Amino acid sequence: MTHDSQLNGSVIAGGAGFIGPTLVGRLLDEGRHVFVFDNFTRGKAAYLDKYAGSGRLTIRRTELASRNDCESALASAAAICNVDEVWHLAANSDIPAGIEDPDIDFTSTFQTTFELLRAMQPLGIRDFHFASSSAVYGDFGSQTLHEGLGPLFPISNYGAMKLASEAQASAAAERFLRRLNIFRFPNVVGIPATHGVILDFIHKLAATPDELHVLGDGSQQKSYLHVSDLVAAMLVIRARERSSKTELVNIGASDAGVTVKWIAEQVVLRVNPSARIVFGSGSKGWIGDVPRFSYSSEKMHSYGWAPAMGSEAAVLRAIDEIARQESI
Amino acid sequence: MTHDSQLNGSVIAGGAGFIGPTLVGRLLDEGRHVFVFDNFTRGKAAYLDKYAGSGRLTIRRTELASRNDCESALASAAAICNVDEVWHLAANSDIPAGIEDPDIDFTSTFQTTFELLRAMQPLGIRDFHFASSSAVYGDFGSQTLHEGLGPLFPISNYGAMKLASEAQASAAAERFLRRLNIFRFPNVVGIPATHGVILDFIHKLAATPDELHVLGDGSQQKSYLHVSDLVAAMLVIRARERSSKTELVNIGASDAGVTVKWIAEQVVLRVNPSARIVFGSGSKGWIGDVPRFSYSSEKMHSYGWAPAMGSEAAVLRAIDEIARQESI
Repeated sequence: MTHDSQLNGSVIAGGAGFIGPTLVGRLLDEGRHVFVFDNFTRGKAAYLDKYAGSGRLTIRRTELASRNDCESALASAAAICNVDEVWHLAANSDIPAGIEDPDIDFTSTFQTTFELLRAMQPLGIRDFHFASSSAVYGDFGSQTLHEGLGPLFPISNYGAMKLASEAQASAAAERFLRRLNIFRFPNVVGIPATHGVILDFIHKLAATPDELHVLGDGSQQKSYLHVSDLVAAMLVIRARERSSKTELVNIGASDAGVTVKWIAEQVVLRVNPSARIVFGSGSKGWIGDVPRFSYSSEKMHSYGWAPAMGSEAAVLRAIDEIARQESI
Repeated sequence: MTHDSQLNGSVIAGGAGFIGPTLVGRLLDEGRHVFVFDNFTRGKAAYLDKYAGSGRLTIRRTELASRNDCESALASAAAICNVDEVWHLAANSDIPAGIEDPDIDFTSTFQTTFELLRAMQPLGIRDFHFASSSAVYGDFGSQTLHEGLGPLFPISNYGAMKLASEAQASAAAERFLRRLNIFRFPNVVGIPATHGVILDFIHKLAATPDELHVLGDGSQQKSYLHVSDLVAAMLVIRARERSSKTELVNIGASDAGVTVKWIAEQVVLRVNPSARIVFGSGSKGWIGDVPRFSYSSEKMHSYGWAPAMGSEAAVLRAIDEIARQESI
């Protein structure tokens, strides 16, 4: 294939996972060529099947934490068209596993960031959109989590390596990036679901239809955002004119959220209304979990963005979508 | 050597560099066995010669970023006595080199932290004292740098990997540490000088005695702390009773600092009063340098600590010490 300098290209690292497919659709709609690099740990090429007809989607199995693999993937994209941005969605998505073995987040959550940034510079790819996480905040108790908080003490290796990635991207912005957008993701729900509390509950109910065992006492309360609202928010930030090179925003629902107990009840209602819910004890589901937090989206709101769905609506829609995905 | 469970031991990672020797002396005074693990990139075993007679100092060449080397070094210490703390001073100390090649800070500044923490857990070593840096803040313009600032956008890979290290240590605190102390170091001066503006000026004057070339216009203004005050501050934090597992403090002089121009003038006065000073242009000496900042030590002061020397006194004493070190 010869190089098409009139065609703009976007790389989506980890683009075959949960968030990627929605973003792929939006970027293809812009007329871009989209390159999805994914190691398919959780992601699946099948999630992108519906875009196969576009002729502008390239999917490549890539270990982004591997220097050679990462460099050659980015170079192969730059050989095809004018690649001007990288969306970095690749990360470990099993937080408890990462707490047992810190190597997991070191490699999958941080080294992927490090190698992507390192490979971008010589290719002149200068816009970086990074999927950070509310997990960078750690446990601030009942304090509302806003972007200006500090110092940050993440309580999981996942949160630590997301914060490390923010920091490395920030240094790269001083060095060569034109634009750096850091999105601190909330709890996101929707399809294709690869992990998370809703999928977990549906799997458990499929295995034992009469009983749903919940880790912890169910009092954990969090806000949830639907993936369609999340992707819309990122595109708002990307399109927004501004004077600063770096932008960092929380993206989230502005409500107080819902409890795990409420989610369990809604899943049971949808899947098997006669099932009994059995709770564990303690307000934390596992080490590294934050029992309750409220997440400030004031900054995003000041930019004119608001989610179409609050936490309840997002979770209810996701339960229905995931139940269908699992053929229930 | 048989294990002495009555003897407490301290590991000092990177202990043969600039800060380590002063700390070694203080910990030996406490009656501890001190283990210095250093790869001698900048450090020198000779800096520790004066403590050789103690019988409680072990020095070992160690690549802390290497898993095997780090694990076996820590295990060798734990075999000798009750090692209950690690002081982590190891890092790349050439910030401009780290900006040219991000691998340097990835390995020397971050991976050392990662491997130390990983190796501590199975050995039951649960106190971690970490030398972080004011470089984690990045460029906040004229705003005073206090611990509560956020979000942080470090502008050097060094600052990024120090922030990454804070984050990883924080996750380790949730997992297994008893105590985590994070010290955000200011510009520190004193001996043995291995790098820094004073040593640089003295070396330049030794090479061309009649002229001192200064990077930038000399207007960069920073506060400086003498290494003896720095070590005293760390020991204050270590001794202080508190309810929280994690403590993070700026350590610094509370004055507005001195300019590079003033330092150049003082070095010339001490070394060769007839030398001419030639300034470059621009307020930054190199990419990643922060031209001017004021550093809040209010938190340390609220704990009853104050440096014996302000910036001027610290720099003047260090100029004299370093000139003697360089036999001038």
